Amino acid sequence: MIKDRRSGIVATCSALDLMALYEQPFLEFAPEIDLIPPEAVSVPEAVEYVLTWKPEDDAFVPYPNLRAVFSIAAGIDGILECPSLPDVPVFRVEDPDQAQQMAGFAAFHVVWHHRDMGAYLKAQKSHSWQRDVGKQSPRHKRIGIMGFGLMGRAIGKGLTALGYDVTTLSRRPPTPAEPGMRHMTTDQTQSFLAGTDILINVMPLTPETQGILNRDLFAALPKGAVLIQMGRGAQLIESDLLDALESGQISGASLDVFGTEPLPPESPLWDHPKLFLTPHVASTPEAAAVVRSVRAGLSTLSQNGLTD
Amino acid sequence: MIKDRRSGIVATCSALDLMALYEQPFLEFAPEIDLIPPEAVSVPEAVEYVLTWKPEDDAFVPYPNLRAVFSIAAGIDGILECPSLPDVPVFRVEDPDQAQQMAGFAAFHVVWHHRDMGAYLKAQKSHSWQRDVGKQSPRHKRIGIMGFGLMGRAIGKGLTALGYDVTTLSRRPPTPAEPGMRHMTTDQTQSFLAGTDILINVMPLTPETQGILNRDLFAALPKGAVLIQMGRGAQLIESDLLDALESGQISGASLDVFGTEPLPPESPLWDHPKLFLTPHVASTPEAAAVVRSVRAGLSTLSQNGLTD
Repeated sequence: MIKDRRSGIVATCSALDLMALYEQPFLEFAPEIDLIPPEAVSVPEAVEYVLTWKPEDDAFVPYPNLRAVFSIAAGIDGILECPSLPDVPVFRVEDPDQAQQMAGFAAFHVVWHHRDMGAYLKAQKSHSWQRDVGKQSPRHKRIGIMGFGLMGRAIGKGLTALGYDVTTLSRRPPTPAEPGMRHMTTDQTQSFLAGTDILINVMPLTPETQGILNRDLFAALPKGAVLIQMGRGAQLIESDLLDALESGQISGASLDVFGTEPLPPESPLWDHPKLFLTPHVASTPEAAAVVRSVRAGLSTLSQNGLTD
Repeated sequence: MIKDRRSGIVATCSALDLMALYEQPFLEFAPEIDLIPPEAVSVPEAVEYVLTWKPEDDAFVPYPNLRAVFSIAAGIDGILECPSLPDVPVFRVEDPDQAQQMAGFAAFHVVWHHRDMGAYLKAQKSHSWQRDVGKQSPRHKRIGIMGFGLMGRAIGKGLTALGYDVTTLSRRPPTPAEPGMRHMTTDQTQSFLAGTDILINVMPLTPETQGILNRDLFAALPKGAVLIQMGRGAQLIESDLLDALESGQISGASLDVFGTEPLPPESPLWDHPKLFLTPHVASTPEAAAVVRSVRAGLSTLSQNGLTD
């Protein structure tokens, strides 16, 4: 039974059951915040806040008096491109824990490629003791991180602690700069790419970054470079990657995000021996972090005089 | 043609061709040090230094006037057990770069087990999009590092930077302590083990640590714990590990070192689905580091008045 309610934070998303994921965490960590499904709203004009991830095109139409939208994720492209989104602030989750999940995931894939860990799994299958040593030092691979927000920073710190040489690329120089990393800006993209053996993408999806991981970018990397794709699926031209793997320009890649998710069973990516595919699992915000983030957003709005 | 030489540093090892590995690096980085094979020595009584890894039992017999032995590795148990070793200092390689190799290797295996990366490889084979999210936070796995020298410290720093909770175990409290880690001493071993979800072993091989990774130790870990074995093969009772995997007490393990190396093709370890085996490749000292280490050892001896 759904109680009729005037307003509250409306959880609306076509791709995820937000009530199932977040109803209990809100009750537990922020009982003062009323999370409700769209069908429980009795006076849509009273709704001021929406929580969502990938909203339907018309998701915001019923709520003419919205004051803000809260994303359950760090990436908000799915919200920004929604045709019915009104001109209100969109808050995204800034979860340090999620950034650390990204860092562990990136470190794993850097070592997977750098030290060819897949070859050991194969050798194990044939009971074969195949040592090939001498290139294990992190000095042998230069890491380039494209995108330097909370995620990129955590990834860079993790890899720096593991001894890797890290260069970052972002539109503006990051503040603060990170000791031990080299920071470059997008006007230096060609030079950044030329010095990157393992490229980690964590850029947000924008009109500028759509399709940015393409043949031109791959050609600007040193021959045999590696791609670790943890950004957005729409940033990668998958056929260009397959061509670059074929030519040896790219020697291997780890892909966690895809243009179409779930990745269709007939995709040629699945069977490629130089690809390590994961189903968009590099990180997820913990439920408590989502609640904290919504609460912090409400507090910001309140300080700015946008709420009463 | 081998020139007759009175002395120099004699490179002697049954298991590795040290001249092939290190002749050039010594010429390049320390031309003042004369690295020679045993068969080039014309006056064995004049030999004061030996470079080795796993010496034959009688390797030191020809050299009655030895002043020091240099190991090419961090582990010197193979030298210390040699029956003909005289009572002289044994210098081991202390290579910060090698410690970073260990750190990357450990981080890889922590994430492999924590995030069940092998399951994604299997799912990829069947073109299957299988998401299981919610346990990706590093807070879900407590790391315990047994052995806290140069290697253990680098491993701990790397994992701390990735957000993992790290506790270390060593005979004495480490100096300096590491911010962000918890240090325990061997009188607290039971409590250390009880709080460890992923156990990383990097202890040196001593009479006390021989066979230490056995059924009693596994039983003291929480059910379903993981072992990452990067220490010495003789520390692990392999049949006890297989039993613990069978019972589920240990849920998975990564083994880089073995009681017999190369691991014999008939070993039951190879085919175990919960084991990730690698052929003793966690780290190797770079040749330049070996040379630096020998030079530093000679300098120490000289400062102590042991050389002229």
